[in-house]
Amino acid sequence: MVLTKKIHNFSAGPAILPQEVLKEAAEGILDFTKGLSILEISHRSKEFEAVLEEAKSLVKELLGVPDGYSILFLHGGARLQFVMAPLNQLTVNGYAAYVNTGTWATGAIKEAKIIGKVNVIASSEDKKFTYIPKGFTIPADADYLHLTSNNTVYGTQYRQLLESPVPVICDMSSDIMSRKINVSKFALIYAGAQKNMGPAGTTLVIIKNDFIKDPGRTVPTMMSYKIHVENNSLYNTPSVYAIFVCMLTMRWLKKVGGVEYIEKKNREKADYLYAEVDRNPLFRGVTVKEDRSVMNATFVLSKPELETTFNQMASEAGLSGIKGHRSVGGYRASLYNALPFESVKALVEVMQEFERKKG
Amino acid sequence: MVLTKKIHNFSAGPAILPQEVLKEAAEGILDFTKGLSILEISHRSKEFEAVLEEAKSLVKELLGVPDGYSILFLHGGARLQFVMAPLNQLTVNGYAAYVNTGTWATGAIKEAKIIGKVNVIASSEDKKFTYIPKGFTIPADADYLHLTSNNTVYGTQYRQLLESPVPVICDMSSDIMSRKINVSKFALIYAGAQKNMGPAGTTLVIIKNDFIKDPGRTVPTMMSYKIHVENNSLYNTPSVYAIFVCMLTMRWLKKVGGVEYIEKKNREKADYLYAEVDRNPLFRGVTVKEDRSVMNATFVLSKPELETTFNQMASEAGLSGIKGHRSVGGYRASLYNALPFESVKALVEVMQEFERKKG
Repeated sequence: MVLTKKIHNFSAGPAILPQEVLKEAAEGILDFTKGLSILEISHRSKEFEAVLEEAKSLVKELLGVPDGYSILFLHGGARLQFVMAPLNQLTVNGYAAYVNTGTWATGAIKEAKIIGKVNVIASSEDKKFTYIPKGFTIPADADYLHLTSNNTVYGTQYRQLLESPVPVICDMSSDIMSRKINVSKFALIYAGAQKNMGPAGTTLVIIKNDFIKDPGRTVPTMMSYKIHVENNSLYNTPSVYAIFVCMLTMRWLKKVGGVEYIEKKNREKADYLYAEVDRNPLFRGVTVKEDRSVMNATFVLSKPELETTFNQMASEAGLSGIKGHRSVGGYRASLYNALPFESVKALVEVMQEFERKKG
Repeated sequence: MVLTKKIHNFSAGPAILPQEVLKEAAEGILDFTKGLSILEISHRSKEFEAVLEEAKSLVKELLGVPDGYSILFLHGGARLQFVMAPLNQLTVNGYAAYVNTGTWATGAIKEAKIIGKVNVIASSEDKKFTYIPKGFTIPADADYLHLTSNNTVYGTQYRQLLESPVPVICDMSSDIMSRKINVSKFALIYAGAQKNMGPAGTTLVIIKNDFIKDPGRTVPTMMSYKIHVENNSLYNTPSVYAIFVCMLTMRWLKKVGGVEYIEKKNREKADYLYAEVDRNPLFRGVTVKEDRSVMNATFVLSKPELETTFNQMASEAGLSGIKGHRSVGGYRASLYNALPFESVKALVEVMQEFERKKG
């Protein structure tokens, strides 16, 4: 088998990036403009402003963001958004509705509770977050509903969009740009870049302008959506290089066929891997089938005592990053946009070889 | 004159980096470990943990950080520290003492006031921040004293260390690693990386462990020093690449001779430029001489009508980034660690040529 790289990178994030993007990302370090590196130019230079504008315009185009929304590239990771979202949008006398689908939702709930009143309206904690709650009622008087679209740790994902009577805030860190979404159904989308969009170090925020209201508390300037919108993500020095690489990655995505194309490819990769998980008697999936994540496929060995053998075989085949999250164990193959089908094929081959040896 | 680059980069930040660092920074993008880019590996991989440990250990060595301090690389820029510092260290019933020496101190004061009680004990606002206040009394019952060691916008810098009866928090964004400091005199030092330490995207925090106390309020997890110390900067995905380039930049600094060496070099650059500002009748400095910054030399034309001519001459000589901060105008030459003496020489030559033509 010919590998494009020595390593098949299934890392859950920071994660594999398109190889041609890496080449351009390195060129920008050495000579971005007039012999200067992208690392040493002012964030207020026209050259960087062009990068920022192109990045914003690619987000708009790739996700079909309608007018009336602002696109920001902020610091701090999605975890800072766990705080910023309620700080800006949870009114002092109101409450927010959260759905708990795992580690990240739990984190978002914890932070929101520090800021104001929170009502967890649905949770899959009863079954170790192996499914997406359904059929719950969204209260019409909540300030907003908070969702986590894809759960990287447990490997579940909302397949259907929820109809909500209140504005929806969604953490899309691990599936942004991996599938088509109807942005107009969301008031606020945030996503750490380090899965499908680029490297660690910046967070995409898409916010409906008329969702920005006074929550009745003074929000620290650096944490105010209003301030960041007014300053076009340049209120302080942004994470210049991370934004540059996001721009390059989105250029690549546009070139290969956009979100519609990549969604099809991602589905093919996931279907191929889950088919093997279901067929191969040495493996089993851990989540409810209908809620399986297209981005992070989780599975365990049916004979846990064979772990060392499988790990060794995987390692010899150059499979990297398939260990499950430290909080849950097992295996997790992250199938982000840039992961080629060949890597999934390589994993499935190892699973089959493992069956021949130990089945 | 032989230039190492086509451009002399006087940018105030993000700023010039050592050219050999850029080469290594680009190599890390293409192949950091086993054919994988530094951009696509997990922040929990042993390879990245080695980067983080080396970065911390270089900070410790270069600045002589004593035991009992923690070294963090956080998100958000120094501006997020404007919020985090009071959120963690300003007690609900106490107050903090701030000295206002310009734009950044003003920003820090504004954010602290959102969190708690602030007493501005000294300010140079009366003379447009052209000097560093002296001879003021530091109240012994304040939770802490907050200082800004170097003021990038106005071009002033504390030359002398203050003796303080209360813990000192210092924003050293624009002069960290440029001169020797006695870390033991500070309870908390923070610095955005994008001047002397590396690219934009991460912020260095050096905190005395026993300074971390319960302020009497619940601090959001992402904004808690305690949490970041306990998690060794890995509470969430850090700004991996920015930390990597900081490590490379500090390796370079160590190799060329450390902080003591670079302090001497920085002083030579500043002395050479200020001597010309003082000698050349077409220029004048804007700050009090004894408080002049070694990092950011500010000056104006004595005949403002000649601005276009000087700008054109500077541009033709490849001088980049010498325009003053948009809030104050005039000129500012930033003389950070990586700026070679040749660049200062090139600037002075243009100033002299300008005098020959227009003096």
